Formats: sequence, structure tokens, C-alpha cells
Amino acid sequence: MNAEPAPAPELDVTEWLNAGPLTLAGLRGRVVVLEAFQMLCPSCVSHSLPQAKRVAATFSSDDVVVLGLHTVFEHHEAMGPVSLRAFAHENRLTFPIAIDRHDDHDPTPVTFARYGMRGTPTTVLVDRAGQVRNQAFGSVPDLALGAQIAALAAER
Amino acid sequence: MNAEPAPAPELDVTEWLNAGPLTLAGLRGRVVVLEAFQMLCPSCVSHSLPQAKRVAATFSSDDVVVLGLHTVFEHHEAMGPVSLRAFAHENRLTFPIAIDRHDDHDPTPVTFARYGMRGTPTTVLVDRAGQVRNQAFGSVPDLALGAQIAALAAER
Amino acid sequence: MNAEPAPAPELDVTEWLNAGPLTLAGLRGRVVVLEAFQMLCPSCVSHSLPQAKRVAATFSSDDVVVLGLHTVFEHHEAMGPVSLRAFAHENRLTFPIAIDRHDDHDPTPVTFARYGMRGTPTTVLVDRAGQVRNQAFGSVPDLALGAQIAALAAER
Amino acid sequence: MNAEPAPAPELDVTEWLNAGPLTLAGLRGRVVVLEAFQMLCPSCVSHSLPQAKRVAATFSSDDVVVLGLHTVFEHHEAMGPVSLRAFAHENRLTFPIAIDRHDDHDPTPVTFARYGMRGTPTTVLVDRAGQVRNQAFGSVPDLALGAQIAALAAER
Repeated sequence: MNAEPAPAPELDVTEWLNAGPLTLAGLRGRVVVLEAFQMLCPSCVSHSLPQAKRVAATFSSDDVVVLGLHTVFEHHEAMGPVSLRAFAHENRLTFPIAIDRHDDHDPTPVTFARYGMRGTPTTVLVDRAGQVRNQAFGSVPDLALGAQIAALAAER
Repeated sequence: MNAEPAPAPELDVTEWLNAGPLTLAGLRGRVVVLEAFQMLCPSCVSHSLPQAKRVAATFSSDDVVVLGLHTVFEHHEAMGPVSLRAFAHENRLTFPIAIDRHDDHDPTPVTFARYGMRGTPTTVLVDRAGQVRNQAFGSVPDLALGAQIAALAAER
Repeated sequence: MNAEPAPAPELDVTEWLNAGPLTLAGLRGRVVVLEAFQMLCPSCVSHSLPQAKRVAATFSSDDVVVLGLHTVFEHHEAMGPVSLRAFAHENRLTFPIAIDRHDDHDPTPVTFARYGMRGTPTTVLVDRAGQVRNQAFGSVPDLALGAQIAALAAER
Repeated sequence: MNAEPAPAPELDVTEWLNAGPLTLAGLRGRVVVLEAFQMLCPSCVSHSLPQAKRVAATFSSDDVVVLGLHTVFEHHEAMGPVSLRAFAHENRLTFPIAIDRHDDHDPTPVTFARYGMRGTPTTVLVDRAGQVRNQAFGSVPDLALGAQIAALAAER
């Protein structure tokens, strides 16, 4: 884990796929794996989204919730909700996916900024108490990610 | 090679990326590797487009020309030219890519239909004389594809 | 975890590579990942030994100890200590490796039999209290293995 | 192809697996893919031997013959014929494999020296006329290898 624990900023999003609106506050008590991605980011497609599917399949949803965050900061016109929906269908993403909000004409999305993200993919681990315990930009190996999630799941 | 040689139908496309308009007729004398794909087709993204890049890097362009054919038969609204352009940029596709034409409201694109394609990815090999010599739906191993292309390149 | 906890049988081995003699009793207090393999078992070479190296690199040795167990039940004449030593050198295995004992002319090694192993690779997880908590024959995905080890490491 | 054509030195070997004794002279008329390896060389095991199996499965044996050359220049005592036989069995190598000869106490094997090899894996391509047309130390991509072999097979 590389981050000093700090309260996880709430998501500020405009739309959800695969689920009704969710909030981190409402998921308190469970570990949240927040996978921030863009549908046209190659290493999101090849690495982090397949990994997020494996996480959802490996851990019990009583303990661990996987959320996608579609957080577009470039090529906005190519990655709108209609495109994302087709992408999620074709890639069989079945976990809840939130679409990050844009304020006015700011190209940087709101939740992305709140978390101080540097790009995609970014994987954020939020513990049962709602604290950010790890935030990693780029690829995380499966072995380390499995260990980090399980360590948080073991906290009561 | 699995196909009886037959004249390769000409491309009927609306737009080109990475090149001015090209025709198969104009490429006569060289082997053409035509990679038909959709930008939201997972095995195109993970397998056949990276393979097409390797083909372009392995063979001399004097002998072998790689062409992409974006041939959308589903999720049309998610895979328009603007989206394709961003996709090609992010995935560093630098070979010429043609956008297949749609007649009126027919969801099946014209060139796709002319070739009797069944889906994407489809890899078509056209010999120096403009004959289709192989057409494969799905993934082709690198070793076999390299051999097929080289066999056509060796014909004079 | 798929096993009812039961005391881990002590190792009965003839020789150690990369370390002086070790015992499970002496490692009490730490999680032990026991990787049973044969140097000529293809999926040991391609999957489980590289995974064991990743485990050793991912977890602190204060919490988790990786041990190899070379447990030969076929091709005995091809996998003696001299061969194993060359194999470990070429594959850069630096964690301690024990050579399982053979009684008289029984082709099945002693430790292998004590654990009721069915073949190689077999990955055994022993908790801090010396109980077998999981024993898996065949390949285990990194994500699940990382989670299982971390869950045991979190027990105090 | 990176080599000036030169006559392929004849093999000087002590033993054959999977076939009676063969000579390059006797294979004249066909393309020979000579895969030089050591059974404890990691990239031979992970890359070049699986590739050699794919080559044997992809090309017709009327045109292309795959030969293994076990050419041991280190850890001699760990890679004798008994070990090699077990290795070939476990890895399901079914193409003919020759064991390179050692003169007296020279650690460098005879055929290895004749070809001026620098290590393993080395892949040598011999054309239908018995000329070395390519010799590559290290990993060769499938696409390039398939193309090189097919180009030689196309020569009559």
C-alpha cells in the first residue's frame, strides 16, 4: 500500500451503467476497488479492465465491490455514453460503471480531479471505513493486487 | 491457403485514414493484406490489429501492403469516423485504413458484403495479380500468416 | 481456501539448496508457501516456479516464506541433485529448495505421500500456526493466490 | 535472411531420439529448420522449442523438416542422454533430435563449433540446396520465421 489513509472523495458522476446510482458512502463496510479508465486507453483495454473482471470473479461481493469509473480527459467526442455502452457490451463488463462528470468546459473530469489522478488506468482501493488505502497509476500485477485487496478485506 | 483464387472485389469505401484514397487495382503487383475490423471488436483489438502492425513492420512495403478496413455492422453510432480516428491514434495504427460504405439504411457495409465476410476480424490475402488467395474469419497464428504472405510474395 | 485446517506434516528431505536445513516447525509464526515441483514438469517450469519467484518478491520474508520441494516420482534418473542444481541456477531460483526423500525403492517420495499429493505442481499454504489451509494441484491464478496468502498473513 | 549462403556443415552427432540417424545430405531437396538447444536453457524451453513444434505442425514435412540439436556446452553432467530423453517425453517433442558430439574433453560440442554458434537457442535455416540461409541466436518472432521458411520452401 503506498498511500497515507485519507477519506475517499465521493464520486461525482452523471450516469451509471449496469446498476442504479451508487455512492461510496452507501458502500461503507465493504472494500471498494475503483477502476478508473477510458474506453480508448489501450492498457485499460488489455490489462486493467480484464483484471477488474477477475477481481469481481475472485472476491465475494459481500466483501469487495468493483466499480468502473469512465473518466474521459481526451478525445471526448469519441467516448460518449453511447460509445461506452457499446464498449461495455462488447467487452462483457458487468460490474457497475459510473461516468465521471465534466464541469462546463473543463476537459478534466470532476472525480478524476478530486482524486488527483494522473491518467488512466488508475486503480483505487478504498477500505471498509471509506479511506483510500492505495492509488496506483498504470498496471498493477495480479499477485500484489490480490494481496492488497485481501489485506483490506481482512480488516474488521 | 483455403480459398480458390478469385478476383478480389474492389473496395467501396467512404473515407481513408493515414493515406489518400487507394484502390486494389492501384496496388496490383504487390501482395495486399486486408485486415477487416471493428474498433469495438475485442479480438480485433487484442489480436488482429497488433498482428497487422507486426505484418507491416516485418515485410517490405515494396512487396506487401497492409490495409485496414473498418467495416461496422453493429453499434454503428458508437463507431463513427471521429471515434475511429481517436482509436487509431491511441492504438498507433499507422497503416492506411478505409471506412467501409453503407448503402442507405442497410446495416451491412458494402465491401463486407462483396467479400462475403461473416464477421470481424477477417484477414484477406490478395496476391500480386489481384486474386483473393485466402480469407480467414477469426484469429490466424503468426507463423501461418507469415508463411502465407511470404509464399504470395515469392510469386512473380 | 479449500482445505479443512490440519497440522502440516513435517518435511522429510535429504538435501537443501539455497539454504541450510529448515523445518516447518522452525518457521512457525510465518506463512509458508510450499511449492512442490519436478524440474521436468512443463507446467512447473512455465507457471508455478515463476509464480513462486513472484510470491517471494511480493511479500515480506518477515511474513511469508517460499519453499520449493523437489519431489520426484518419475524419471528419477533424470532429476537427481546434480541436475536440480543446474536447473535452479539456470532458472535463477533463489528461494530454499528441499529434495524430497525416497524410502528404499518406493518411487513415491516421503513428503509427497505425507501430504497426499496427486502430482506436480502442488501449492500448499501453511498458516502462522503450522496448519495447512490450502493445497492446490495444478495452476492457481495469481490474483487468488495473492489473496489467499495475504489473508493468512493478516491472521495474528 | 541475415546470412550469406554457405554450405551447411554436416551434423556430427552421437545419438538420435525420435528417428534413425539422419544427415543433412540425406535431406537435400527439403528445407531444414535446425533448432539448437539445451534442455536447461530457459528461453529454449519457453520459446524456441514450442516454436519448433509449431513449425513442424504448420509446414508439410514434404517441404520442411524440423530437427532438434541438443548441443550442451555447460552443466554437462545434468544434461546427458537419459535426462534429455525424459525431457523430450515430458515436453512432447516428437521431431527428430540429435545429440551433438564432444571431442575428448572439449566442453564445446563439435557441430556447435562447426556452425560458429554463440549459444542457445540458435535457429538455423538450411535451404533445399543445402545452403545455410539464416542463423539466429536468441528468439525469432513467429511471423518472421514463418516468412523465412516459406520463402525458402518457395524456391525450386
